[in-house]
Amino acid sequence: MDTLISEAVPEPPKRLKRGGRAGNQRRGGAAIRQMPWEVPVNSDRPIEPLPPEGVEAIHDGTMRILEEVGVEFLNREAVEIFRSEGCLIDRETPDSARVRFGRDFIMEKIALAPGAFTLTPRNEARRITIGGDHIVFGNVSSPPSCSDLDRGRRTGDRAAYQDLIKLTQYFNCLHFAGGYPVEPMDLHPSIRHLDCLYDKLTLTDKVVHAYSLGSERVEDVMEMVRIAGGLTHDEFDATPRMYTNINSTSPLKHDWPMIDGLMRLARRGQPTIVTPFTLAGAMSPITLAGTVAQSLAESLCAIALIQTINPGCPCAIGTFSSNVDMKTGAPAFGTPDYIRTTQMTGQMARHYGLPLRSSNTCVSNAPDNQATWESAHSLFAAITSGTNVVYHAAGWLEGGLCASYEKFIIDCEQVQQLIAYMKPVKWDADEIALEAIAEVGQGGHFFGIQHTQDRYETAFYAPFLSDWSNYENWRDRGAVQTVERANRIWKQILAEFEPPPMDAAIREELEDFVARRKQEGGAPTDF
Amino acid sequence: MDTLISEAVPEPPKRLKRGGRAGNQRRGGAAIRQMPWEVPVNSDRPIEPLPPEGVEAIHDGTMRILEEVGVEFLNREAVEIFRSEGCLIDRETPDSARVRFGRDFIMEKIALAPGAFTLTPRNEARRITIGGDHIVFGNVSSPPSCSDLDRGRRTGDRAAYQDLIKLTQYFNCLHFAGGYPVEPMDLHPSIRHLDCLYDKLTLTDKVVHAYSLGSERVEDVMEMVRIAGGLTHDEFDATPRMYTNINSTSPLKHDWPMIDGLMRLARRGQPTIVTPFTLAGAMSPITLAGTVAQSLAESLCAIALIQTINPGCPCAIGTFSSNVDMKTGAPAFGTPDYIRTTQMTGQMARHYGLPLRSSNTCVSNAPDNQATWESAHSLFAAITSGTNVVYHAAGWLEGGLCASYEKFIIDCEQVQQLIAYMKPVKWDADEIALEAIAEVGQGGHFFGIQHTQDRYETAFYAPFLSDWSNYENWRDRGAVQTVERANRIWKQILAEFEPPPMDAAIREELEDFVARRKQEGGAPTDF
Repeated sequence: MDTLISEAVPEPPKRLKRGGRAGNQRRGGAAIRQMPWEVPVNSDRPIEPLPPEGVEAIHDGTMRILEEVGVEFLNREAVEIFRSEGCLIDRETPDSARVRFGRDFIMEKIALAPGAFTLTPRNEARRITIGGDHIVFGNVSSPPSCSDLDRGRRTGDRAAYQDLIKLTQYFNCLHFAGGYPVEPMDLHPSIRHLDCLYDKLTLTDKVVHAYSLGSERVEDVMEMVRIAGGLTHDEFDATPRMYTNINSTSPLKHDWPMIDGLMRLARRGQPTIVTPFTLAGAMSPITLAGTVAQSLAESLCAIALIQTINPGCPCAIGTFSSNVDMKTGAPAFGTPDYIRTTQMTGQMARHYGLPLRSSNTCVSNAPDNQATWESAHSLFAAITSGTNVVYHAAGWLEGGLCASYEKFIIDCEQVQQLIAYMKPVKWDADEIALEAIAEVGQGGHFFGIQHTQDRYETAFYAPFLSDWSNYENWRDRGAVQTVERANRIWKQILAEFEPPPMDAAIREELEDFVARRKQEGGAPTDF
Repeated sequence: MDTLISEAVPEPPKRLKRGGRAGNQRRGGAAIRQMPWEVPVNSDRPIEPLPPEGVEAIHDGTMRILEEVGVEFLNREAVEIFRSEGCLIDRETPDSARVRFGRDFIMEKIALAPGAFTLTPRNEARRITIGGDHIVFGNVSSPPSCSDLDRGRRTGDRAAYQDLIKLTQYFNCLHFAGGYPVEPMDLHPSIRHLDCLYDKLTLTDKVVHAYSLGSERVEDVMEMVRIAGGLTHDEFDATPRMYTNINSTSPLKHDWPMIDGLMRLARRGQPTIVTPFTLAGAMSPITLAGTVAQSLAESLCAIALIQTINPGCPCAIGTFSSNVDMKTGAPAFGTPDYIRTTQMTGQMARHYGLPLRSSNTCVSNAPDNQATWESAHSLFAAITSGTNVVYHAAGWLEGGLCASYEKFIIDCEQVQQLIAYMKPVKWDADEIALEAIAEVGQGGHFFGIQHTQDRYETAFYAPFLSDWSNYENWRDRGAVQTVERANRIWKQILAEFEPPPMDAAIREELEDFVARRKQEGGAPTDF
C-alpha cells in the first residue's frame, strides 16, 4: 500500500546544510498507516454561487465601503503610511484615525501581491505552497481549554500544548503548525511565546506562525525561526519562512498589535493572512453579501498596507464569516450560511488574485455527530471555495474554545479522505478495463483476475479510523465507536512519538535565546 | 420564522376530488420546527471530474461493453423484444440469453426518455419532479434490522416499519417513501407487500414505490396506488403515480423479476430507476472508470428496453458504485472513491440526458462520527454530482443492513442543511447593505439596527437538532450529545404523529383489496 497510505518520509534536502546538520529524516511510528506527506492539489473547479454580475456587485460594495465608510486604524504608523499615499484621514486621535481609500489605490496595491507563494520551514522538505490550486491544512489554534475522554475538559497547559503539537507533527495531512493548538495557561504570558515556539520548533519541522500580539513577541518568533532554520538574517528575509494571521476588530477597525505585527513581517518579506471575524447580524450585516463585502474591505485595506510597505510581499485573504443564532446571539459555524459566505469569498479572492484561508469550524460542545457534520460542511466549504489554507483543520471544538484530542484524530481522517478525493480521476483504457470486463463476463467476480491483483494494494483510499467490518465482527470486538477508537489512536501516537531531528548546535542556540529573553523579562503584558 | 423553518402545510388541491374526498390538509406536531415542504432546486453547477474527452472515453467503453461483451437477461420476454429490434442474441437457455446491443440502437432508444418527469402521489400537493436541477430525498430502504438507543438492534417488524414510515411522512425534507424502511419480518412474504403498502398509503401521502419482486406484487402495488389516489385505470396510466427501482446482478446480468417489474410498469407509463450495484474490485473492475462504464452498460440496456416497450416512458439511471475493502472484500461507502464514481456517473447521466439517482450511504455499525462523515460525504457526492433522487437519505446504517431511528433524525438535519445551502445567494443592494454598514460604522454592532430587525427571523437556516449553546449552558442542561437529542426527537414525533387524511370510502376500498388478496394467498414465495 505504498502510494496512498504508507508512512511518509519527506525527502531530506540533498545537500547537508551548514553546521553539518542532517536533513530531517524521520520515520513515523506504527500507530496508524497514513498518507505520505504531500502538498495537495485541488483539481476541481470551485463552486461559484455568484454570477459575474454578483462578483461585480460585491466588488463595488467593498470599494464603496472603503471609499465612503472607511476603516479605523488604531496604529498611527499605519495611518501615516496611508496619509503619504494620499488616502483620506479624519477622526484623528493620538492613537487612531479613520482612513478612507480610493478604489484605484486599493486595486493598484493588491495587484502587487503574488497569487501564490511558498513557505519554507526548517526542514525544506516540508515546504508548502500557498495559492493557485494548492490546499494545505493546519491544526486548531488558540483555544483556552482542551479535552479528552480520559481527563475531561480542562484549562490548557504546556503538557497538552506539547501533546497537540506532536499530533500536528505526526499527521502528514497537516501541513503547518498554526497558532497554539491550546493556550498553555500555566506559562506566564510574558514568556509563553518563548516556551511555545521552542517546543514548536523542536517538536515539529513544519511551517510555524507568530501571533501578532506585541512587537517583542513578533520579533522573538522571527528570530527563533531564523535560528531554527540555521539561517542568516539575509537568508531569512529572502524568502517566506513563517507567517502571521491577523484579525480585524469588526466592524471596520484594525487594532494596534495586529497591524504592528503585519508591518514587522512585511518588512522582512514574511506573509500575513488578514482574517476578519465577521458574524452576520452581529459584527457585520445580517445579509451574507454585505458580510462578505465588509470582510473584504477589512482585509483588502490591510493587504494594501503590506504592499505599500513591501511591494510583492506575499499575503492572503482570510474569511471567518458565519451567522449567529438570532435567538441568543451565539456564533454558529459549519452552517449553510457559512458554506455560502466561504464560497462567495473564494470567488472574490480569485477576482483579486489572492490566496484564500478558511477554517474547519464547528460549535458542538462534544466530539459527537454535530461536531462531525459541522466539520464536514466546513471542509466541504473549504474545498469547494478554492480555499488554499485550511486553519483549525484538526481538533477544533466549541466554536474554538476547546481543543479535543479525539476530534483531532477524527478530523485528520476526514481531511485525509478529502485529500484523497481531490486527486484527479483517470479514464485511460487501463482504467476503463474493457478486457477485464470481457474476461469476467456475466455473473462472475473480479476479485481473482490479474487486473485486480495488479492494483489492489493501492486502488482505493484506506482509512485509519473507519471500521468497515460487519456488525457481528464489530460487536464481537467490543462495539468500539469512533470516538473511542480515536482515543486509542492519539494515545498510541503520543507513546511512540519521536521528534524530528535537530542539530545540537541549533538546539543550543535556541535554548540560549529563550534563556536570555526570559532573563530580560520576555514581552510586556497588559496585566 | 415563516419561510425557512415553519411547519409545512402542502396546499390541498383546490377542487375536491371524486367521492367528496377532502384535500390532505394536515398540520404537523410541535416536536420540532422544520422546513416547509418544497421540491428543492440545486442551483450550483455540478463538480465534473471528467474532462469532455473523459466523458467520451467512458461513453465509448460503455458502448463497447454493450456491443462486445453484452448483458445476460434471465427473462425470455425481454430477450424476444430485443431480438425483434435486431439485437444479437446468443448463449440461449430456456430461461435466459446473452444480448449484445449496437450503440445506435441504445442511443436511439435512450434519446426517447424524458430528461425530467413528475411523480404524483395521492396528495397532489406532494407531487415531485425528477430530473433537471431538482433534487428529492427519500427514506432508507430494505434493511432487515433496525436499532434505537432504547431497544438496541433487533430484527425488523411491522411496528418498526410503521414507526419509520411515520418519520418519513413527518419530515418535509423527505419527498418520497422509497422501499420499506425496515423489512417487517413478522409479516409473511406472501402478504407482506399488501400490509406494507396499506400502511404506507394510509400513513403517508407521499410518492411510494413497488419492489419488483414478482408479477403479483407489482400488480398489487399498482392497483393499491390507483385505489389510494381515487383514480380510474386510465387516469393511473396517464401520468407517473409511483415507480420501481431495480438492481442488476452485476456483472452484466438482469434477473427475471426485476425486468418483469420494469416491463409491467413501463406498459402503464410508470417509471423505473435502474440501479446496478457495482462494488469496484468485486462486481466490477477495480478501476473507477471501468466500474462506471460497466454500471452504465447495465442501466442503459434496461432503459433501452423500457423505451422499446413504451417510447417516452420516464426512467432514471441509478448509481451504486463504490469500492470494497481489499483486505476483506467488505463493501465501503461514503468513501473518496464513492464520491468520485457518483460524480462521474452524474456527468454521464447528463451526457445521456437522463435523471440520476444516488444514495446517502455509510458502513458504520453505530450512529456515530463515522456514520456522520460517511453520510456527509455521500450527501456531498449527491449534491455535487447533479443527483436528482437521493435514496436512503435518512436512517441508513451498517451498509444498509440496519435502519437506525437516531440516524434517521441526524440525517434529516444534514439533509435540511444541505437543502438550505443549495438555495441561490443574493447580491442586490439590500443584501450588500451599504447603508447598514455606514450606519454602524467602526466598532459598533448590528444587532439593534433596523436592517437586522427587519430580517432576523428568516435570515439564517435554523437547525432542529444542533445545540448552539455555549459549553457551560450545555453542561448545565445535562451535556446531552447529538444522538441522545435525536432519540428524544423521534419519540416526540411518533407520540404526536397524525396520519394524513384519507377519504373513508377509499380506505375501505384499500382494506377490501388487501383482505381479498390475502384470501387469495397473496404472492407466491420461493420458500
